[in-house]
Amino acid sequence: MKQQKALEGLKILDFTRVYSGPYCTMLLADLGAEVIKIEAPKKGDDTRMFAPIRQGESGYFLYLNRCKKSITLDLKQKKGKEIAKGLSQWADIVIENFSPGTMERLGLDYETIKKINPEIIYASISGFGQTGPYRNKAAYDAVAQAMGGWTALTGFPDTTPVRIGPAISDAATGVHAMAAILAAVIYKQKTGKGQYIDIAMMDTVFSMLENAVPIKTLMNENPSRIGNSNPSSAPYNLYPTKDSHIVIATANDVLFQKLSAVMGQPNLILQERFSTNPNRKAHEKELNQIIESWTRQHTNEEIEQMLDAVKVPVASLKTVAQLVDDPQIANRNMLITLEHPVVGNVQFPGNPLKLQQTPPQPNQRAPLLGEHTDEILKNILHYSHEEIQHFKKNQII
Amino acid sequence: MKQQKALEGLKILDFTRVYSGPYCTMLLADLGAEVIKIEAPKKGDDTRMFAPIRQGESGYFLYLNRCKKSITLDLKQKKGKEIAKGLSQWADIVIENFSPGTMERLGLDYETIKKINPEIIYASISGFGQTGPYRNKAAYDAVAQAMGGWTALTGFPDTTPVRIGPAISDAATGVHAMAAILAAVIYKQKTGKGQYIDIAMMDTVFSMLENAVPIKTLMNENPSRIGNSNPSSAPYNLYPTKDSHIVIATANDVLFQKLSAVMGQPNLILQERFSTNPNRKAHEKELNQIIESWTRQHTNEEIEQMLDAVKVPVASLKTVAQLVDDPQIANRNMLITLEHPVVGNVQFPGNPLKLQQTPPQPNQRAPLLGEHTDEILKNILHYSHEEIQHFKKNQII
Repeated sequence: MKQQKALEGLKILDFTRVYSGPYCTMLLADLGAEVIKIEAPKKGDDTRMFAPIRQGESGYFLYLNRCKKSITLDLKQKKGKEIAKGLSQWADIVIENFSPGTMERLGLDYETIKKINPEIIYASISGFGQTGPYRNKAAYDAVAQAMGGWTALTGFPDTTPVRIGPAISDAATGVHAMAAILAAVIYKQKTGKGQYIDIAMMDTVFSMLENAVPIKTLMNENPSRIGNSNPSSAPYNLYPTKDSHIVIATANDVLFQKLSAVMGQPNLILQERFSTNPNRKAHEKELNQIIESWTRQHTNEEIEQMLDAVKVPVASLKTVAQLVDDPQIANRNMLITLEHPVVGNVQFPGNPLKLQQTPPQPNQRAPLLGEHTDEILKNILHYSHEEIQHFKKNQII
Repeated sequence: MKQQKALEGLKILDFTRVYSGPYCTMLLADLGAEVIKIEAPKKGDDTRMFAPIRQGESGYFLYLNRCKKSITLDLKQKKGKEIAKGLSQWADIVIENFSPGTMERLGLDYETIKKINPEIIYASISGFGQTGPYRNKAAYDAVAQAMGGWTALTGFPDTTPVRIGPAISDAATGVHAMAAILAAVIYKQKTGKGQYIDIAMMDTVFSMLENAVPIKTLMNENPSRIGNSNPSSAPYNLYPTKDSHIVIATANDVLFQKLSAVMGQPNLILQERFSTNPNRKAHEKELNQIIESWTRQHTNEEIEQMLDAVKVPVASLKTVAQLVDDPQIANRNMLITLEHPVVGNVQFPGNPLKLQQTPPQPNQRAPLLGEHTDEILKNILHYSHEEIQHFKKNQII
């Protein structure tokens, strides 16, 4: 029996591009929502040109846009707007991530769409939100990470702060948008009422600062960078090994004792300076040197085996090259293969939302540019063949 | 008129502790779900003892647990399990984040709860998932970041990789869990059917690697650390200023020309080595030195004004001390004040899920330990006063 999809029947008109919006609509599409992605004619989503590119196809685009349909539309032309409005009537959800004000200028903002589909759920994602003094600031992931507080807290105390490598503020904002959208869907299922949703990258980053804000507001201290260490426990760090780096995290005496025994130095804890967690924290530098002279002698695999055996938390630093062959990634179906007419079979991350009865099904490759234009215009909006030819001729689609 | 809550009526039995689960249930509670938090007697959630602590109260706990009710229960005692099961019948959703196998040993796993509440939605959050070879590995945020691929990609090319400061893998996993739970609620609203949900930190981290996985699978390259730079554009970096650091992000010729003009060096682009984005990228080191000798002469505020005026993407590095006074944070209601009987008024991050008709209402302080035990036992499970006294006497609650 074909497996049910959790969000089957949910209709999403997707104006988003690049990362934050497309990550949101990817998770939704994987769970069975019907996502129609609007792209500019000829060029489409910017990420169709983002690295990695092979044979003219972008792995960036192919990852994030599986399970979606693509229609090309020139939203600047009157007829293009009309088609977009027609699709807004079809949709349950409209989602966009243009800079604030763009959809108003295009005549496709919430107030306009509400007139033709009064109970639409309309979500906007932006760098800083639709309101406030920073509303018009250019938003990139590097900007959001810096402005929201992550960058100042990442890196080593005595060197330059550093941005997180992947654009995590984009992805985090996208999944928060998904959560907000689904909450609105639940509310609408009960009451019949839609609404507007305003999601900001800076809000999202700021809400994910763990305890940094109360450190300031409760204690009047300004938290800062601590590298790979733990604010209260030691030894707890990323240690260099024979072949890589490894996380060892001991947060109490029992774990420290086990680690010391494995290292062949069971009496470390008898030394006053290493006898309690606070003492170890105060003497962290010397302690780390002791640990490091041991870790440097072994490979990650050896250390993992030794410490897993006694249940001391330990974790290898994994690169992507290692992860694509990782047995846990394989077990979790977190690497999926999609077949593409140009680049053939390529693997991408799967979907982490593991619902057991209605699991995600990321099994349709990303669309070619405008691949579903005709089908959508005909089957959903009931334009005739002649009208569609006219649109093509006038570069409306 | 009192404002509607999107998730009013949703009943959540929350066994989670520390960060990933509590962040999930915080977002749900802010939107109106009724969250009953089960805590161990005497000690409660570990974070009641996490920094920052003032007058015996933890800002860590107070932030994440607003809008929830607390019942203390000894789940190891037979009667404690019985009470938990009674609450599982009351609940629409059960959520837990113990290490895999714990809820089975307690006799409160999905299969058991399903027998008494067949359509329960039961979500488990763990480091690596309920399946696979890493199932039993100790899970911390530092572990998940390293194992999922973030740490190897964060930091500078020639120095040690670094963990993101705040425990972002915990928060990201929590919000992915919320999205999955709400998808299951939507499915249940349509079909009447509940299900099990299995969310893993490693899966979540791996899905948020932007284009790192296709860089490997499409191109057979292993992505690595690039510090604050952009893989294809320059100048794009975090530059030292007179008083801090600042992000300047120019990804095309127009923006570079504007930046050069502001710096009083409008002819930079006429130099062959700076004439195109690829050329600038190839000569990034020299170019950054030129930018840096300019940024070091000005404060962040001066640079932001100059570059905002010509719309060159620029962002100050914000510390938490600056953010609590930030006008955008204020405008977005991203700093809320909660009143506590011991520590008084304290500010915490607000909720980023800005639904406009049913906005989040994070306006109830976090519960004292077991604050709602009597009320819950009486009003939901209808135990008598005598029975409750008996539970207290035997340290079941």
